[in-house]
Amino acid sequence: MRSAHPTSEALSKLQHKLQVRGLDALIVSQPDNRRYVSGYTAPDHGIQESSGHLLVTQNERPYLLTDSRFTLQAEAEASACCIHVYRRGLLEALEELLPKLGVRSLGFEAEYFLYANYLRLQELAIRLSVQLLALSNLVEDLRVVKTAEELELIRQSTQLNEQVFAQVYQQIAPGQSEREIARLIEGTMLDLGAERPSFDTIVAFGENAARPHAVPSERKLQPGETVLIDMGLVLNGYCSDMSRTFVLGKPDVLFMERLRLVRAAQKAAISTIRAGVTGAQVDAAARKVLSDGGYGEAFGHGLGHGVGLAVHEAPRLSLHGHAPLAAGMVVTVEPGLYLADWGGIRLENMVIVTEEGCEVLNRDTTFLDL
Amino acid sequence: MRSAHPTSEALSKLQHKLQVRGLDALIVSQPDNRRYVSGYTAPDHGIQESSGHLLVTQNERPYLLTDSRFTLQAEAEASACCIHVYRRGLLEALEELLPKLGVRSLGFEAEYFLYANYLRLQELAIRLSVQLLALSNLVEDLRVVKTAEELELIRQSTQLNEQVFAQVYQQIAPGQSEREIARLIEGTMLDLGAERPSFDTIVAFGENAARPHAVPSERKLQPGETVLIDMGLVLNGYCSDMSRTFVLGKPDVLFMERLRLVRAAQKAAISTIRAGVTGAQVDAAARKVLSDGGYGEAFGHGLGHGVGLAVHEAPRLSLHGHAPLAAGMVVTVEPGLYLADWGGIRLENMVIVTEEGCEVLNRDTTFLDL
Repeated sequence: MRSAHPTSEALSKLQHKLQVRGLDALIVSQPDNRRYVSGYTAPDHGIQESSGHLLVTQNERPYLLTDSRFTLQAEAEASACCIHVYRRGLLEALEELLPKLGVRSLGFEAEYFLYANYLRLQELAIRLSVQLLALSNLVEDLRVVKTAEELELIRQSTQLNEQVFAQVYQQIAPGQSEREIARLIEGTMLDLGAERPSFDTIVAFGENAARPHAVPSERKLQPGETVLIDMGLVLNGYCSDMSRTFVLGKPDVLFMERLRLVRAAQKAAISTIRAGVTGAQVDAAARKVLSDGGYGEAFGHGLGHGVGLAVHEAPRLSLHGHAPLAAGMVVTVEPGLYLADWGGIRLENMVIVTEEGCEVLNRDTTFLDL
Repeated sequence: MRSAHPTSEALSKLQHKLQVRGLDALIVSQPDNRRYVSGYTAPDHGIQESSGHLLVTQNERPYLLTDSRFTLQAEAEASACCIHVYRRGLLEALEELLPKLGVRSLGFEAEYFLYANYLRLQELAIRLSVQLLALSNLVEDLRVVKTAEELELIRQSTQLNEQVFAQVYQQIAPGQSEREIARLIEGTMLDLGAERPSFDTIVAFGENAARPHAVPSERKLQPGETVLIDMGLVLNGYCSDMSRTFVLGKPDVLFMERLRLVRAAQKAAISTIRAGVTGAQVDAAARKVLSDGGYGEAFGHGLGHGVGLAVHEAPRLSLHGHAPLAAGMVVTVEPGLYLADWGGIRLENMVIVTEEGCEVLNRDTTFLDL
């Protein structure tokens, strides 16, 4: 078992939600949600290839519905669940179980369920006289505030990510390609015990760094060029995420000026973070520093995002982050500036929101103490 | 640019479909479909984080709608498209473009569009008096039969996959863990020029091989144990997929008996493949051999699947494969048997369907010539 998260508490909370709403049952299909509630760690192989669904009712043991490829894993990991193996998929299992369990109202995850699958489910629901409800964020809203145990796992994930960065940084030299360094990073992650990268590692040199989601290329590092690295890993199921931008050798004045501005934006944002503040307010704090510095247009993405079982999850630190932050949330703070003909700079740390402020998880300050 | 696929033909065919159906426009959101029609290679980062959508009309240049993180990549790769950058997502872009283009009927991909996003799109469609249509497989049906150029790319992908296998096989030794070998495989893929693995590499020893989708563990290889490897890579966008099962040293009689039976099932299936036969017929040919051998219950998954830009795509070789195969399709043939207390065996080759039969793409016969 790769997960140390106590799922029984999550399950109780979710069942309580069903009771409060008077909802007989909920299908949990999103893999991180599924894992959070059951301990079952199998990922889906693309949106059209489910590794299973939970059928959670108000009081009974939940069912983990899956196919025979996953029976052994399901039994080993989802010990609190009844394992129900289907041959033809979810609908076949529901057709058997819904009447048996007396389910009259059934929720599904509107933000993960495909429209085509909804049509099929609706047809079944009508046939069984079950009321179908599209629901959003029932499990996500539980996941957003981390338990002490989850925070510890995220700390460990971040610590390992920094260890990888430090080790790789020693080995970076002119002549290496973006792709080579990205592979070195991902190989080192695995060497040091990570399950996998939490996203495709970004390594971008020079003007390639103007693409916030650059894909590492065969371009070779020239002395004096910008190096932008955005990397994260998964350890015990929990993600980390960090970006650094630097120059090997002596950076020019313009680079240092822009790097300092991005760092100032990051510091301004971090100083505003505490429980009760909205994501939009934190985003605005960073955006103001960049705008005042003349780079408002060069910062085209949101300031940050939640991190947990998923590398991108709630809450958002952006123009659209209207909900107040709460203690125990984990977010990235990653201002940047991107100029098509020049390149880009991004600095990203992760922080835990607390009642009075926040705890910065990253210890690495190699390129931050300017 | 990583894609060599000529997208203009795909685009013309898709536009022709719109004309025949009298559909003004189609939103193409599924990343492989998007790439197939436009050349734009960005993947989505999970189902909830789109890297863009195509808006294809009957006659005009298609629009690639994306956000500022991807502008440069979109311009470089999707040269036939107008690049339209949105700040808030698809709906904002559609609100502007649909009236401008005079779109009165709009299709979307029911098998990729999330139910929640459908609700948002429907609300917009009602407001703009646009008729909304849920469509399936418009682009997938084009992708299923490969062009000569695509077949060549798939051949190259398979060839490289076999090269990786051959190189890794030389290095496998007792004492190594499943995870170690999986990493060696994925590292060798990248060393030899693959873009990435086409799925998470499976390496399973002994009774772990009873899980068709086993996740590599720290379990160490004992002399005489079964080794099941299922591996594939992506080269120039196109996938390969191959499984081998073997024993280091002298296998016991039972293993050889079962391996021969799986190989016989594979050969029986391959000998039935030609244009016009259904996937279900091919599946049945393999299943009969396994059933006759007393292992009908031990083969719980379908026989095979199409391979192309996606590692799992149409057509299916399974009980549910009702459509006739056509020349130019590429499928895996992967019978197996899985016994919980013993382990498992799977042999997987890729073939191209032809008018008269099929071309087996795999040259490796190390564990097949029994």
